[in-house]
Amino acid sequence: MSNVYAVIMAGGAGTRFWPASRARVPKQFLPLGADASESLLAATVRRLEPLIPPERVFIATGAALREATSRVAPRVPSAQILAEPVPRNTAPCVGWATATLLRQDPDAVVAVLPSDHFIRDEPEFLRVVEKALGVARDGYLCTIGIVPTRPDTGYGYIEVGEVLSPGSFMVSRFVEKPERARADEFVRGGKHLWNAGMFFFEARTMARAIETHLPDLFRGLEEIDAAARRGEEESTLAAVFPTLPSISIDHGVMEKASAVAVVPGDFGWNDVGSWESAWELSTKDEARNGLPQDAVAIDASGNFVCDRTTTSGKRVYALVGVSDLILVETDDAVLLIPRDRAQDVRAVVERLKLRGDAGRL
Amino acid sequence: MSNVYAVIMAGGAGTRFWPASRARVPKQFLPLGADASESLLAATVRRLEPLIPPERVFIATGAALREATSRVAPRVPSAQILAEPVPRNTAPCVGWATATLLRQDPDAVVAVLPSDHFIRDEPEFLRVVEKALGVARDGYLCTIGIVPTRPDTGYGYIEVGEVLSPGSFMVSRFVEKPERARADEFVRGGKHLWNAGMFFFEARTMARAIETHLPDLFRGLEEIDAAARRGEEESTLAAVFPTLPSISIDHGVMEKASAVAVVPGDFGWNDVGSWESAWELSTKDEARNGLPQDAVAIDASGNFVCDRTTTSGKRVYALVGVSDLILVETDDAVLLIPRDRAQDVRAVVERLKLRGDAGRL
Repeated sequence: MSNVYAVIMAGGAGTRFWPASRARVPKQFLPLGADASESLLAATVRRLEPLIPPERVFIATGAALREATSRVAPRVPSAQILAEPVPRNTAPCVGWATATLLRQDPDAVVAVLPSDHFIRDEPEFLRVVEKALGVARDGYLCTIGIVPTRPDTGYGYIEVGEVLSPGSFMVSRFVEKPERARADEFVRGGKHLWNAGMFFFEARTMARAIETHLPDLFRGLEEIDAAARRGEEESTLAAVFPTLPSISIDHGVMEKASAVAVVPGDFGWNDVGSWESAWELSTKDEARNGLPQDAVAIDASGNFVCDRTTTSGKRVYALVGVSDLILVETDDAVLLIPRDRAQDVRAVVERLKLRGDAGRL
Repeated sequence: MSNVYAVIMAGGAGTRFWPASRARVPKQFLPLGADASESLLAATVRRLEPLIPPERVFIATGAALREATSRVAPRVPSAQILAEPVPRNTAPCVGWATATLLRQDPDAVVAVLPSDHFIRDEPEFLRVVEKALGVARDGYLCTIGIVPTRPDTGYGYIEVGEVLSPGSFMVSRFVEKPERARADEFVRGGKHLWNAGMFFFEARTMARAIETHLPDLFRGLEEIDAAARRGEEESTLAAVFPTLPSISIDHGVMEKASAVAVVPGDFGWNDVGSWESAWELSTKDEARNGLPQDAVAIDASGNFVCDRTTTSGKRVYALVGVSDLILVETDDAVLLIPRDRAQDVRAVVERLKLRGDAGRL
């Protein structure tokens, strides 16, 4: 399958993991999975390797993160780090990567994957990806839908339609993040999957779909592609990319196209959406505390401590009589917040912005 | 009043302020009062100065803390740091200091004071001390009793007897730490004061009282005194001090002697008994959080953060949605505990002892 390529989307900003994440150290650079020494991005590249080796991996990121991304994924050729001049959502990103691949390989089959998710069962993940790539080769825009484990209102859902082949289905429709009651129905009904932002397609199929559903984007991409063929991509990209329509590939293409398929996946997926998820993924003691080595926990349960200081490993954390708290430490900032309010770390980031504390953002 | 001397008792171990306090950095060395730059011991020396200058202050401490004590109280002559070879409770300590003073000044009047308490109203404190010293000059063993503000079961109480002079009373009796119901009665009744461990006496009166009530201690002190007169105090002290009866001056002398007086004091006293007290004394925001400069508090109330790291002042603490917690940070340890469990820090210290983690004790 030497014409299979991966495009890893690594443009995230990631204020949700402050103070560990910063503008220059977004979530995908952090080791938030089960292995505290491997960043989410590095894990994403590594787990693909049996199917798609680093030589055929492209990483889309922001211009400011280009070098750092290369350092985190050293085996991905640096020419394959696609640096967007400005963030314009996922449709321009996928479109640009598609055009780039088509120039190299008119038969390219592409897997578009997020850079900042966790997957527990990697062999099963690869089986599902292989299945989705097969569906893509049949001319479909294919996605993976995660079998839901709870009525989460934080994800979009994919309604499964008629069977396409064993293990793949037509998509009836994409559903925006639902209210709780509707999410309950979805999980009970068994016909809805979580949209995890993974897309599989032949490059030529996606190009045609963009031409049909996002003609403005298509024209912009043609301009960039023409410049690239002349060896002048950089200046044209800087001029044209900011003018491309800022829209997601879901809204812009997947929801509008007709030949859209889905492969259900059940491989221990976690989108690592907040410190709460990091706690879920951490190694925990019998009282469900996810703590650094040597910690002392007395009457303490369900807590998570993340030590990202330069003295990490040298400090003893002693927790007494506290439950369900998150404590994150860096050299210049400390966060203390209940697990069930983990999303509210954004309020801290807003406060620091107002204060003009750029050094800590 | 050039024959008035202070003996500051600074032998405390102070596991209650772990991880800020350590065997080598006990509570009296920490700036736990309202002024975060002045240790409790330094404040004790400073506030006495209008009545008793440092040249007439003696500090009793453990041998291992002698040099550190000198550094914290540099204006106290180093020969006046009385280093006990081993801790033997307060009666041997007071007795040794008394004998030492009697050699220098047969008319010495002595104020014995703890090194690790906080006093808000210093002028009023000095007025009360002056009163107590006057009572001592009349031949009484005098103590200061703190006017109680709540039915605390953590203190001993002093029952006030007949009036001795305006503002001073005979002591009816000393009462051990009471049960809650009895403490309630004490506070309602208005005849009980807190025993704050402050004693005032002529050195010769105390020597006689020790001779009467603790004859074993008296004989040991005579031996040390005789050696000191020969210029051989050190070796005799090392041999004899460990054999002295380990008993408090309260139990050993004050409760047994007859001419015992008390001067009530109401000067914002706080024994700084735990991190809870440190929070009480700290400068707090409108939500009763005692936090370092620049902290961010969102829906957070009643919390206390003590940053004793070497990078103190450079870290932003962000607290969201948490209440009544204590967070203490040092370079090698972090403590997180609810305010109302502050006493349980001892359990952490015990755990580290079992583990053999001497470096953090």
